Amino acid sequence: MTPEAKVADKREAILEATIKVLQQRGLSGLKVEEVARAAEVGKGTVYLYFQDKQDLLKALVEHHALSFYRNVEQIVMQDRPFAERLREVLALRLDFASEWRGSWASVAREAHPGDPSGWLKGLRETYLRLLEVLVRSGQERGEVRRDLDPSLTAAVLDAINPQFELPRQAYLEHLMEVLVKGVGQ
Amino acid sequence: MTPEAKVADKREAILEATIKVLQQRGLSGLKVEEVARAAEVGKGTVYLYFQDKQDLLKALVEHHALSFYRNVEQIVMQDRPFAERLREVLALRLDFASEWRGSWASVAREAHPGDPSGWLKGLRETYLRLLEVLVRSGQERGEVRRDLDPSLTAAVLDAINPQFELPRQAYLEHLMEVLVKGVGQ
Repeated sequence: MTPEAKVADKREAILEATIKVLQQRGLSGLKVEEVARAAEVGKGTVYLYFQDKQDLLKALVEHHALSFYRNVEQIVMQDRPFAERLREVLALRLDFASEWRGSWASVAREAHPGDPSGWLKGLRETYLRLLEVLVRSGQERGEVRRDLDPSLTAAVLDAINPQFELPRQAYLEHLMEVLVKGVGQ
Repeated sequence: MTPEAKVADKREAILEATIKVLQQRGLSGLKVEEVARAAEVGKGTVYLYFQDKQDLLKALVEHHALSFYRNVEQIVMQDRPFAERLREVLALRLDFASEWRGSWASVAREAHPGDPSGWLKGLRETYLRLLEVLVRSGQERGEVRRDLDPSLTAAVLDAINPQFELPRQAYLEHLMEVLVKGVGQ
């Protein structure tokens, strides 16, 4: 392992430990000591990678958002039917929402005091752009109506409201039923 | 006007003034003095109706949510085609979202310190129940597929994400295009 890979590895281990501590103890119970213990490193090591708790949380949100986008992009770029790819993207989106269980907003607020909405909007737009690429490719394949505006349709496909707890599989099926038929030829 | 109506009237005037001050000065600029000035009453009068700023904000959220639900209910209960009623409900929902422009969450937090999510979830479920009634009536009219679960379909129809700023009319048209075709026979 190169020294660079080692650094990336340790940074990622600390971020993974952070999400574990968050899930177990909530935001109010998140302490750098606990993160260090969960990551099996010294407290000083955490401070080598992150200035403070706020910096750690900001990195956490970006790390998770980026890895979500990478996964979505990988699905979107495949040469497969629109509906199959949409199903996988929506399943990922549901997993993401349930993993964070409503703590996304409070973590974002702590990571970005003041008004985090601009920062979050920037992250969110990446997802909407990927959905837009998916709609366009569905149109090119003749599987999505060409009279639909790709950007507005992407916004409609972003129909998941993570605040609402529903049986995952049944909800996903209904999303697919309505959305795929709704955009179809 | 009866004394009861007068009280309700003054209370409502103070709440309307509060939303005006909120829109002009934001949450950080919201002061009871300003609200009193905008409502053309004395500061003491505000305290006759509301304990403090937090109580005022809690009443504001509930007042606006309830008046939104009343309007939605009125539309849902009409004996008219499903698609027409859905369009009107979604238009109301878009107006509601744009009126609050992302300040809903921060107002809710200030109105209900700690974790406002349970309180907000309760408010939100009223809206989902009304959408469910709409879906059932669409099914009874033969305009919505009977194989769709009304509660899950209501959640799918709750597709509006208020954080995202889109041209209102075009977005509404796309929602209608996708959702009405998606749930239709």
